[in-house]
Amino acid sequence: MTELFTRHRETLERAVDACDKRYSWTAYPESPSSKIHGEEKPRAGKARFEAMLGTDYPLEQPGEIGRTGAEISPYTGEPLGITYPRVDVEALYAAVREGMPAWRDASPQTRIGICLEILDRCAGQLFENAHATMHTSGQSYIMAFAGSGANALDRGLEALAYAHKAMADVPATASWERQFGKGGAAKLEKRYRLVPRGIGVVICCATFPLWNGYPALCASLATGNPVVLKPHPSAILPVAMLVSVGREVLAEAGFDPNLITLVADTREEPATLPLLEHPDTAIVDFTGSPRFGEWIERNCPGRLVYTETAGCNSVVIESCDDLQAMASAVAHSLCQASAQMCTSVQNIHVPADGILAGGERVGFDEVAAALVAGVERYLENPQVLCGTLVDDGILATIERYRSLAAQYGRLLRDSAPLDYPDFPRARTASPLMLEVTEEARDIYRDEIFGPVSFVIRGASADDCLRDATTNARERGAITSHVYSVDEAFLDRAVAAYHAAGASVACNLTGMPINFAAAYSDYHVTGLNPAGNACLTDLAFVSSRFRIVQSKRMV
Amino acid sequence: MTELFTRHRETLERAVDACDKRYSWTAYPESPSSKIHGEEKPRAGKARFEAMLGTDYPLEQPGEIGRTGAEISPYTGEPLGITYPRVDVEALYAAVREGMPAWRDASPQTRIGICLEILDRCAGQLFENAHATMHTSGQSYIMAFAGSGANALDRGLEALAYAHKAMADVPATASWERQFGKGGAAKLEKRYRLVPRGIGVVICCATFPLWNGYPALCASLATGNPVVLKPHPSAILPVAMLVSVGREVLAEAGFDPNLITLVADTREEPATLPLLEHPDTAIVDFTGSPRFGEWIERNCPGRLVYTETAGCNSVVIESCDDLQAMASAVAHSLCQASAQMCTSVQNIHVPADGILAGGERVGFDEVAAALVAGVERYLENPQVLCGTLVDDGILATIERYRSLAAQYGRLLRDSAPLDYPDFPRARTASPLMLEVTEEARDIYRDEIFGPVSFVIRGASADDCLRDATTNARERGAITSHVYSVDEAFLDRAVAAYHAAGASVACNLTGMPINFAAAYSDYHVTGLNPAGNACLTDLAFVSSRFRIVQSKRMV
Repeated sequence: MTELFTRHRETLERAVDACDKRYSWTAYPESPSSKIHGEEKPRAGKARFEAMLGTDYPLEQPGEIGRTGAEISPYTGEPLGITYPRVDVEALYAAVREGMPAWRDASPQTRIGICLEILDRCAGQLFENAHATMHTSGQSYIMAFAGSGANALDRGLEALAYAHKAMADVPATASWERQFGKGGAAKLEKRYRLVPRGIGVVICCATFPLWNGYPALCASLATGNPVVLKPHPSAILPVAMLVSVGREVLAEAGFDPNLITLVADTREEPATLPLLEHPDTAIVDFTGSPRFGEWIERNCPGRLVYTETAGCNSVVIESCDDLQAMASAVAHSLCQASAQMCTSVQNIHVPADGILAGGERVGFDEVAAALVAGVERYLENPQVLCGTLVDDGILATIERYRSLAAQYGRLLRDSAPLDYPDFPRARTASPLMLEVTEEARDIYRDEIFGPVSFVIRGASADDCLRDATTNARERGAITSHVYSVDEAFLDRAVAAYHAAGASVACNLTGMPINFAAAYSDYHVTGLNPAGNACLTDLAFVSSRFRIVQSKRMV
Repeated sequence: MTELFTRHRETLERAVDACDKRYSWTAYPESPSSKIHGEEKPRAGKARFEAMLGTDYPLEQPGEIGRTGAEISPYTGEPLGITYPRVDVEALYAAVREGMPAWRDASPQTRIGICLEILDRCAGQLFENAHATMHTSGQSYIMAFAGSGANALDRGLEALAYAHKAMADVPATASWERQFGKGGAAKLEKRYRLVPRGIGVVICCATFPLWNGYPALCASLATGNPVVLKPHPSAILPVAMLVSVGREVLAEAGFDPNLITLVADTREEPATLPLLEHPDTAIVDFTGSPRFGEWIERNCPGRLVYTETAGCNSVVIESCDDLQAMASAVAHSLCQASAQMCTSVQNIHVPADGILAGGERVGFDEVAAALVAGVERYLENPQVLCGTLVDDGILATIERYRSLAAQYGRLLRDSAPLDYPDFPRARTASPLMLEVTEEARDIYRDEIFGPVSFVIRGASADDCLRDATTNARERGAITSHVYSVDEAFLDRAVAAYHAAGASVACNLTGMPINFAAAYSDYHVTGLNPAGNACLTDLAFVSSRFRIVQSKRMV
């Protein structure tokens, strides 16, 4: 039962080592380049994706009471035409329960081996996953291959490494002997068994369907809990493909495939609440909006709840070595995935009297102009970086903030559709940038999903820092950035962000600043409103199982 | 700042090793014998306790708005006459907040060193703690020295060992370097900092005031959280003495003593809810009644809640080698601390057609008689084993079940006051034992606090097991026992208890079966209604802190 563990053991051990030392490492190549993969694999992946269009997705699950699914490609505007089982939750859960005892009784190594095999097979379908992610989440092909693909797989492996550590902390047996009074020695043989909590529900988001999908699945499944995946109605296919792989691996290993199931739905007929309210649901992993995330945190008593939502991520610019490099780094964040990432920057705080850049004083307007220019440069060839908008609501959001610009400040850069020759009907929008002062705090303290950002004129650099960190504490932040050549300011900034329960990156240039590295960056602190859990650490896994023991006198 | 860590390092390392391998070990001697301690220490401890009677307990805390406290000795029936600060929670919390940044910024080693020193000094006051526990909780002197003394200290050290492991899992720094596209290598230096959650409230119980006090204090304090201890109104003194030691050690080490504070109250003016409801309360550790524990689990959203309550602990007797040894072991549990322990047995399931004992068939009545006889033997010299009753309510409970006996079955053994020559006014009661059938399940499925037990006639051994494990699952169990010489039955029993989320002990004789060993027994599973947390494991500590990071391009 542990062949799979043995087969992938080295991968797991390397992941554990990377987590311990937190250097740069990846188990899954994030580039779709044919120089790495050859010509055939990318082609075959695309063909497999296309073959799924307009079909009934093949998933034989108990409790099917019809079909559902209404995904529409943000690139073509066309429905994918794929249907998924619509399930009766009660019937599904009854089937899930049947597989639980054998899975509970399997050794941690057996379960971890199966999770490792699932990740490995998912790595083998990254090309079709990339197309599925493009045409649901709207990511660019390259981002879809990496962000909700290879990078998310790495997060899954990372969660597995922590689950392995937490479970390995509990020995299987012990001998215990001591004297009680005059009664002679009592000698006990003890056995410790790990017991899962119950059914884990994983609620995936629209833009990065598998970002929490792999980690939550691995964390719950490895520790013995079955997993019900609930994709966002607009991005079901990538999740369904993970479910298929998982069920296949489970069945091949002799376990009940219903330990991994899919509950798909549509916006019109959502299926999330019945899952959250079911008494057998013991664990909830959620990625999505702050509003629903907070609701789940407050309304699922007695359940383990792990959320990653979003905040109003900030940049504080106090000074820099190189204005253009700094502006380009920030602009990259405004463009990447059309700012639909949980790590996208929204609020850029710049002192009213400008900054020192390379030792020269540069006015506020010049900094703002450099940011806009940075965006313009990326928009010369936008498709790879910006991708599309996941839904129409984002166009309405842009419209709304455009209309607020004059009232709260001024329009620094207007948003417009982007031109993708291959996809003339793609739903796109370039970044909308507003210049405001702190008087606009009512609008920039909300998390705005999509390419809307603010260049905020602060009274001073320290004022910028105060505002940014206050917002992080009160409204949430997943990433925060500071640019400064002043060591004292950097120290203050790090301290202020940390005091706000936020992590912070200093002076990042020449790399995508949205990037959060598996095995190295603790993603989400859990200390501010942008989520209560970290992907991934011991706390993410160690409560997903419990310990029962038997002791016997010998 | 780490001298204390260095001084106690070996103790910590031994505790970590004991937790990993779970053999028998203790850091604190549990016997008060003068053969170990000499004559002077016990005498001095008693004198220090007596000197506190009738005084204002010396505790200078902010926010004092009067005095409170109404403890009455269960041994003498006299008020202790000790008053404690009555505090304004808002003023107290304001003071607590002041010490938090420095404590948060202290290294884990510094904080762990201080916790180790607190435990060490508490070990130095185990004699006065024993008298304080006797005259509040009503335990016998020996039990008070061990149970809520040395054994609880071991649990504290155990929690500290886990906190140490969980924090050591996060490195302080890392170097990270990778290539992004053609842009050259990005090189980042990263720092990881542990951030505490906020104020931890520890609600202690009446009968074992420090059983969760030490572990919860160590788990929260070591991970950077200040701790507010809220003792049960009838057992304040032992908790106040811990608070005094903690404040003294903190102050000597240069930290704000308000990182450990006491909120005392009376039954008439309880102070718990304002603590639970305060927005700065981030962690709640609770030991007490199942009813209040469940309320806390359900009504503190967004807070970490760790509960240990109680259940209807069971024994299933299928067969045994030695009837008298088995009966004596069970009888010990019925007598020890007058069955006011969370590990006390309540429901004894015996098959209607009796059992095999040493190969001989023994009828149900004979098994019941052996249990009663076992109790009678312990009652020949009851003071050390039985102690007193913590409050008058238990006498009313006994009265109630005595009156129900005829209706639901028959009185097997009546309860009566015990005679303690040293304490003629002691509030005592010997075990009340009822013989019933499963038709009495309405009464025996409640957790009954105090010396009331049931010998339950089951249709068969498997029927006994079914009833006992159903009750464990639905009403909770902290300990469960099985006696059987049949390997197949033992296997079934272990599986059935585990499936009910309960641990189980098999064939324990010749030792106090209520005993749960620190570093070896995982105490409380968290899988049934008798509590949601385990003392102690990684899950007990790993969420009490979070990780923030800063990264900087180099």
